[in-house]
Amino acid sequence: MILTAALSRTQAGKDVGIVNRIGEWGISLTDSVEDALEQGQPDVWIDFTTPEQVKRNVELAIDAGVRPVVGTSGLTEEEIKQLDERCREQGIGGIIAPNFALGAVLMMVFASKAAKYLPDVEVIEMHHDQKLDAPSGTAMKTAELISREREEKKQGHPEEKETLEGARGGYRDGFRIHSVRLPGLVAHQEVLFGGPGQLLTLRHDSMNRESFMPGVKLAVEEVMNRTGLIYGLENVMDL
Amino acid sequence: MILTAALSRTQAGKDVGIVNRIGEWGISLTDSVEDALEQGQPDVWIDFTTPEQVKRNVELAIDAGVRPVVGTSGLTEEEIKQLDERCREQGIGGIIAPNFALGAVLMMVFASKAAKYLPDVEVIEMHHDQKLDAPSGTAMKTAELISREREEKKQGHPEEKETLEGARGGYRDGFRIHSVRLPGLVAHQEVLFGGPGQLLTLRHDSMNRESFMPGVKLAVEEVMNRTGLIYGLENVMDL
Amino acid sequence: MILTAALSRTQAGKDVGIVNRIGEWGISLTDSVEDALEQGQPDVWIDFTTPEQVKRNVELAIDAGVRPVVGTSGLTEEEIKQLDERCREQGIGGIIAPNFALGAVLMMVFASKAAKYLPDVEVIEMHHDQKLDAPSGTAMKTAELISREREEKKQGHPEEKETLEGARGGYRDGFRIHSVRLPGLVAHQEVLFGGPGQLLTLRHDSMNRESFMPGVKLAVEEVMNRTGLIYGLENVMDL
Amino acid sequence: MILTAALSRTQAGKDVGIVNRIGEWGISLTDSVEDALEQGQPDVWIDFTTPEQVKRNVELAIDAGVRPVVGTSGLTEEEIKQLDERCREQGIGGIIAPNFALGAVLMMVFASKAAKYLPDVEVIEMHHDQKLDAPSGTAMKTAELISREREEKKQGHPEEKETLEGARGGYRDGFRIHSVRLPGLVAHQEVLFGGPGQLLTLRHDSMNRESFMPGVKLAVEEVMNRTGLIYGLENVMDL
Repeated sequence: MILTAALSRTQAGKDVGIVNRIGEWGISLTDSVEDALEQGQPDVWIDFTTPEQVKRNVELAIDAGVRPVVGTSGLTEEEIKQLDERCREQGIGGIIAPNFALGAVLMMVFASKAAKYLPDVEVIEMHHDQKLDAPSGTAMKTAELISREREEKKQGHPEEKETLEGARGGYRDGFRIHSVRLPGLVAHQEVLFGGPGQLLTLRHDSMNRESFMPGVKLAVEEVMNRTGLIYGLENVMDL
Repeated sequence: MILTAALSRTQAGKDVGIVNRIGEWGISLTDSVEDALEQGQPDVWIDFTTPEQVKRNVELAIDAGVRPVVGTSGLTEEEIKQLDERCREQGIGGIIAPNFALGAVLMMVFASKAAKYLPDVEVIEMHHDQKLDAPSGTAMKTAELISREREEKKQGHPEEKETLEGARGGYRDGFRIHSVRLPGLVAHQEVLFGGPGQLLTLRHDSMNRESFMPGVKLAVEEVMNRTGLIYGLENVMDL
Repeated sequence: MILTAALSRTQAGKDVGIVNRIGEWGISLTDSVEDALEQGQPDVWIDFTTPEQVKRNVELAIDAGVRPVVGTSGLTEEEIKQLDERCREQGIGGIIAPNFALGAVLMMVFASKAAKYLPDVEVIEMHHDQKLDAPSGTAMKTAELISREREEKKQGHPEEKETLEGARGGYRDGFRIHSVRLPGLVAHQEVLFGGPGQLLTLRHDSMNRESFMPGVKLAVEEVMNRTGLIYGLENVMDL
Repeated sequence: MILTAALSRTQAGKDVGIVNRIGEWGISLTDSVEDALEQGQPDVWIDFTTPEQVKRNVELAIDAGVRPVVGTSGLTEEEIKQLDERCREQGIGGIIAPNFALGAVLMMVFASKAAKYLPDVEVIEMHHDQKLDAPSGTAMKTAELISREREEKKQGHPEEKETLEGARGGYRDGFRIHSVRLPGLVAHQEVLFGGPGQLLTLRHDSMNRESFMPGVKLAVEEVMNRTGLIYGLENVMDL
């Protein structure tokens, strides 16, 4: 893969390599999407910008016949549908994914598969203690996937009671989600499935944003061979 | 499901409920496969006998039009092929599985899927300290499935060296397998997949043989709707 | 150590070895504490009976100069003080312990030590789904020990909020306790301590009641060399 | 605590705050130990330099009545003894520690205590795949502490055999050490203690060098109230 153009509102004019401290790279950052598309003539447009910005960026890319790979959230279902149609008109592929960490995607897909056969489940997510909201978005997404696969069931003993309020965690669709917050933690999640005499645990640990890169690379390769806008990295993976 | 007959060489003549300490059940154990098939007129024959015994048992069952669900190992590929043909002639289904613990099957299937996307892997299996052989059969089976999915690759730093022989574990197809043996452990396995900035861990804990029952139940249900002998529980699961 | 007498209300008259399926042992179970003390002339009285029974048993033992090792809960602080005095009068030792699993005792002692240096902590306890109360007694005891060692501190981001009620677990003295309930689990606890850039985890897994035996053996050895009634196994351990 | 001087061979002359990107701090880095001691008039000398440099640095500090806190390895036992004497002559305290991560120190101290009561143990250390040597220094140090506390014992079944060479890990004093190497891992260690029906696990995860800071702070506080050079952070902790 070759980088042919790069976008930045705040560092426009500077060399992309200098800004990233890897030495001069020969490509100037631009703050204009049109310039980037014109200057770079790329096959793929990688967009991790802002919810405000992303729709216009991607429309411009698609209209220029450039395949979008998008990690920015905030597009509505309707907007995604429209972008899909534009991709199909242009005969090109594209991918929008809420999570490019392959391990996290695998954990969620495996969790939804496991829930069919071991329907008793609890989720424990663990993050650094500066995180404001609990549970995490990934935990809620995992829970949604599990609920979709297993039949409704209320777990635990029917007469179970908390002597300390909240000890049993957050309740959703019959199962429990627990959020741990400590300094030293980064972003971790365990999904525990229990059955008679056995336990299956799926765990993902995310240390830093490097974890997104293999997923972005996979998406870039896949959009070259597809038509239409695909939502979710799992839909281009052979699982 | 209804138990209609039960086989035992050593407890023949006794009531199956008494032997299992759940009160009289009204079914006498027999030491004759023919009697059991005749007496019970079952739809399904569940066989967890011995490698010496299993082939004849299953042949008799199939010939009587009774679907085999088999957890005994020791049948050769050729024998399985012949049994498959007999099943097809009778128009019935059957399942032979080396492992009926659903969680262990899921762990292995997920491991083989994950290896395609996160090819750096190590296996840690942990068993009680009375186990004689290392690594465990499940670890070797898992390793085989991983090797089949990922391209050959030698992991770790090329100049890595052991200052304590064996510290890096057993080497197989480019990756490492570690066997832990301690009192208090039962049967556990972790498969760790690493990528830049992230880790995916699949873990199975087996506490006792109860863990086989949901898998046996699933197999019994599935053989009623299939034709031919299927090898491996994963092949009747929707994964 | 030699077993010299054994007490049972329901199996009185039978051989202790037969009842435990290890073959005839030559000692008949009795339902009388006095008979057991008289018949056995033991050095040590091991009591895992009921809260209703234990006080009288232990008093009779001490008065006969027999050292009590007690795992039954339910004695009040005042009763323990009185039993201590009786032991001192007799010049003998005794131990009452709420937990004889050495690993659980070590986990709790280590947790209280760690809390002094890594005061950010959360407790996750995990039990089978037939357990009625949450959190477990061990978790509450661990929490109490932690609170005693660290200064009061409210953890987590001050503006942290739950989008799913209970997700952050039960609150106690500034930190959180989480209770997981699943089939396949037995009795497990993790204590997580976080600090900048690091995490310390103490975990205990209890598989069955065998785990009490090494602690009972240690207690039996220790009471032979001590005077007075000691509460808690940790107080006879060199930690 | 107040920073009064800072040493750097390569950045001498620059402001210490600018170099660390926290804004101008008003203190220029110097490449002379004498200048730093003279200029700063500090109570404590914190030294994380090189094995070649550290001895002379610390001697100069002690002679100036400044208490050393040293994280650099490479000093011999004899050299440490001499520095201890110099400290005592000056009536000041000092600390040399191979590890300032409080969690790692706690793990090692707890491991040595646990080994007395649960002598069956295995060590699993896990690091990124660019690490050259296996096992890690921390694993070997932990092993040494365990060996010192427990009686010699060969673990595992006497007839246990490896069907894959190295699977059972590195052998030391009767127990096993396992080294895992994967991208995504940073620096982690588990010490597993097994007994009948139970397991105790001590785990430390180190994410980055920030983990040293609370230990350095503790050492700085402690040297103000002590006389003589102490080796190992555990010796100023109340464990």
